Amino acid sequence: MSNPPATQYSISLKVTLENVPGVLGRLAASIGEAGGNIYAVDSFVAKGSVVDREIVVNCISVAHQKDIVAAVEGTEGITLHDWHDRTFRMHEGGKVEVLSLCPVGDMDDLSMAYTPGVARVCNAIAADEQLADEYTIRKNTVAIVSDGTAVLGLGDIGPKGAMPVMEGKALLFKEFAGVDAFPICLDVETPEEIIETVIRLAPTFGGINLEDIAAPGAFQVEEALKEALDIPIFHDDQHGTAVVTLAALENALRVTGKKMEDLSIVISGVGAAGVAIGKILLGAGAGKIVGVDSKGAVYDGRDGLNTWKQWFAENTNPDALQGTLSDVMHDVDVFIGVSAPDILTVDDIDNMADAPIVFAMANPDPEIRPEVVGDRVAVMGTGRSDYPNQINNVLAFPGIFRGALDARASDITEGMKLAAATAIAESVTDDVLSATNIMPSVFDRSVSMAVAAAVAEAAIADGVSRLS
Amino acid sequence: MSNPPATQYSISLKVTLENVPGVLGRLAASIGEAGGNIYAVDSFVAKGSVVDREIVVNCISVAHQKDIVAAVEGTEGITLHDWHDRTFRMHEGGKVEVLSLCPVGDMDDLSMAYTPGVARVCNAIAADEQLADEYTIRKNTVAIVSDGTAVLGLGDIGPKGAMPVMEGKALLFKEFAGVDAFPICLDVETPEEIIETVIRLAPTFGGINLEDIAAPGAFQVEEALKEALDIPIFHDDQHGTAVVTLAALENALRVTGKKMEDLSIVISGVGAAGVAIGKILLGAGAGKIVGVDSKGAVYDGRDGLNTWKQWFAENTNPDALQGTLSDVMHDVDVFIGVSAPDILTVDDIDNMADAPIVFAMANPDPEIRPEVVGDRVAVMGTGRSDYPNQINNVLAFPGIFRGALDARASDITEGMKLAAATAIAESVTDDVLSATNIMPSVFDRSVSMAVAAAVAEAAIADGVSRLS
Repeated sequence: MSNPPATQYSISLKVTLENVPGVLGRLAASIGEAGGNIYAVDSFVAKGSVVDREIVVNCISVAHQKDIVAAVEGTEGITLHDWHDRTFRMHEGGKVEVLSLCPVGDMDDLSMAYTPGVARVCNAIAADEQLADEYTIRKNTVAIVSDGTAVLGLGDIGPKGAMPVMEGKALLFKEFAGVDAFPICLDVETPEEIIETVIRLAPTFGGINLEDIAAPGAFQVEEALKEALDIPIFHDDQHGTAVVTLAALENALRVTGKKMEDLSIVISGVGAAGVAIGKILLGAGAGKIVGVDSKGAVYDGRDGLNTWKQWFAENTNPDALQGTLSDVMHDVDVFIGVSAPDILTVDDIDNMADAPIVFAMANPDPEIRPEVVGDRVAVMGTGRSDYPNQINNVLAFPGIFRGALDARASDITEGMKLAAATAIAESVTDDVLSATNIMPSVFDRSVSMAVAAAVAEAAIADGVSRLS
Repeated sequence: MSNPPATQYSISLKVTLENVPGVLGRLAASIGEAGGNIYAVDSFVAKGSVVDREIVVNCISVAHQKDIVAAVEGTEGITLHDWHDRTFRMHEGGKVEVLSLCPVGDMDDLSMAYTPGVARVCNAIAADEQLADEYTIRKNTVAIVSDGTAVLGLGDIGPKGAMPVMEGKALLFKEFAGVDAFPICLDVETPEEIIETVIRLAPTFGGINLEDIAAPGAFQVEEALKEALDIPIFHDDQHGTAVVTLAALENALRVTGKKMEDLSIVISGVGAAGVAIGKILLGAGAGKIVGVDSKGAVYDGRDGLNTWKQWFAENTNPDALQGTLSDVMHDVDVFIGVSAPDILTVDDIDNMADAPIVFAMANPDPEIRPEVVGDRVAVMGTGRSDYPNQINNVLAFPGIFRGALDARASDITEGMKLAAATAIAESVTDDVLSATNIMPSVFDRSVSMAVAAAVAEAAIADGVSRLS
């Protein structure tokens, strides 16, 4: 199935048109015939017999971009001067900058922000390290740390390849929660090296967001850093996903009237995200959970389980079910997919309990497409913005760190994650909640603020806040 | 000798005055009698019979701040509501923030800056790592790395204590050269750990500014990183100081008519800065150089020299002079001090050659005070802004990194440093050059731009530019 034209492949074309009626129409027709989607027509500058325009066209692929360019070049009355790929243009020079929060316009400013006055602040911190949380960027700054071993769906593309994702994440931290976040992509070989490096970096940062680190190393890194450091450590691929999944489930229960403790749940994919989802659902009081990976159901006693899958096996699947995904889907209330495209069938869904809930979150292509599912389920969600009920980490991580930093939390507890999920769920009020609207918009800034408040409160309740 | 009131100890007081003539005068008199210097009287807000004001007072010390507060509180007709230390207030929450360079206002923006579009850029970089220099923050971002072992004149105050200095440096990078710089303070025990950590961090940064790392570890760190990495590495305490010192010397020679190759030079202090100054002066063709440390003159054959002092000994002091600072000051043209306060005497200066040049750069108190020297020398410079001829690294490092990044330099060569020095020197034109004006103002933005252009040109000439 061919994808539709999309912004990620959009191009901007600078063209000159003969200034007579019909030329723009001819151009639009050419682009349309070539399969392009005109997103915008900007920058009208008439110059006598001609007019300059900038045309933005969504395309399907890089090859398709070239087809569109050829179509424009071949249109009578049009001169193409220049074109560029908008996604690459947006990335030129990177996506974040480091800006001053102080004036440095004269010697008086310098004598406070730099020498000699800065020495007073340095000495104060040297005498009482806690003051670093007040008088340095630690108060509001998080490192987004990756080794580039599990970037999006791209796999191990290395630390430089991972940088654009971490920079993008930094944008989101700032935009949605005012958190200063800085990408740190590491050239390392082992989880031990990540751990060692982050411990060395810790004086600089008020929190660590781990990102796109391959499992099971990611589990090891997070556990070791939580143990070693007294600042919030959060592996977003695990816990960000777990928090938004729980939020989605809470609201799906409001829609269907089912109860958490009665649910039978299958989780497809028992990597970083799957294990964390299992853990948060157990913490939320979910009924029966069975995990399924590429070798089938995960049960206590199966060969070759790593430490974290073994934990998962011991704490789920009470009946020690074995078999394939299809084998364990009978009478299940909830399917949660963090695995691979198109692995769930219509038959599997038909075998589920009444009013089934399906969250097919594999990216970019879900475990089963919503158009295939149709009205077989009560509630369906995916990771995508072009279907209803997008279950997106952006709803969680900015507010979680905002709340943790505001509370000067030394840790991110299970209670803080549960509070974040409920805050996200509750931001969808009864009057707008429906089977196709269980999640708030990722652009609703009030969500992060609600999450932050709930997380800070939970930090205090859990005794990890250092506010005096 | 008591210091005068200074901005670094300034306080801001919120007061309410009776709105009758003479009250402000009485307040000013009280502050003056207590030794405070009123810097500003702001925020006039009349409220019927009273008026609110904000008064900024420069003080001498923290104890003196309290004297001033007591004096204000004791003044008839004045109510003091609140006061704060302006230096600490300026540091609250740190001095830099991480800001977005892209819009993230809607799903189209997100689909280019983040998923799914970001994957296209990641894949492109994974296929060709050079593209990271174009499409990530590496293009314009430098790490300011310290372990906090030699911070300003404060010594080993640890990585958290060092943060305010590194943040201050980041301000200067941005303000004077548009370079994004991020502080990285490391909790490490050895130079080897710094080296290892910076190598791991290198995928994130386009350059490394080493700062306030104790010698001789600092030499080792810089040499190893220059060897290991293909991005500019620059230890500012060494080379920033060396560049501005050479610039100052070039202009002192314009004033005195002396020639570089004829000079007899004594360098007091043979740590990081002293060795680098010796090296750049040799590169600039200086005549005879003798270094003096706390054990006296440094000569080839002296016991206990570390690797770098041994290099210095082998390349300077051709006559193998021994003895104290005073012993080697006879007939010397130039004294360069990067050592300790008040170690140079009037007798030492009187023993120098005709038209002596003295750069007494120990911070905050110079090797000899300008008021003690009087008119005994032809040219005198210090590190301080309250005397003529401030020799300040701020004139060098922002432009050097701007030039290195603009040229995509793989290294910072001796040629680039010499070019930087000459660009700084030449920014003082003949019509304004004088014995008391050999250095440009640190607030003259054109200096960094001139340095950047000269450094980029030298990078190309030296074959280290990767511009295609």
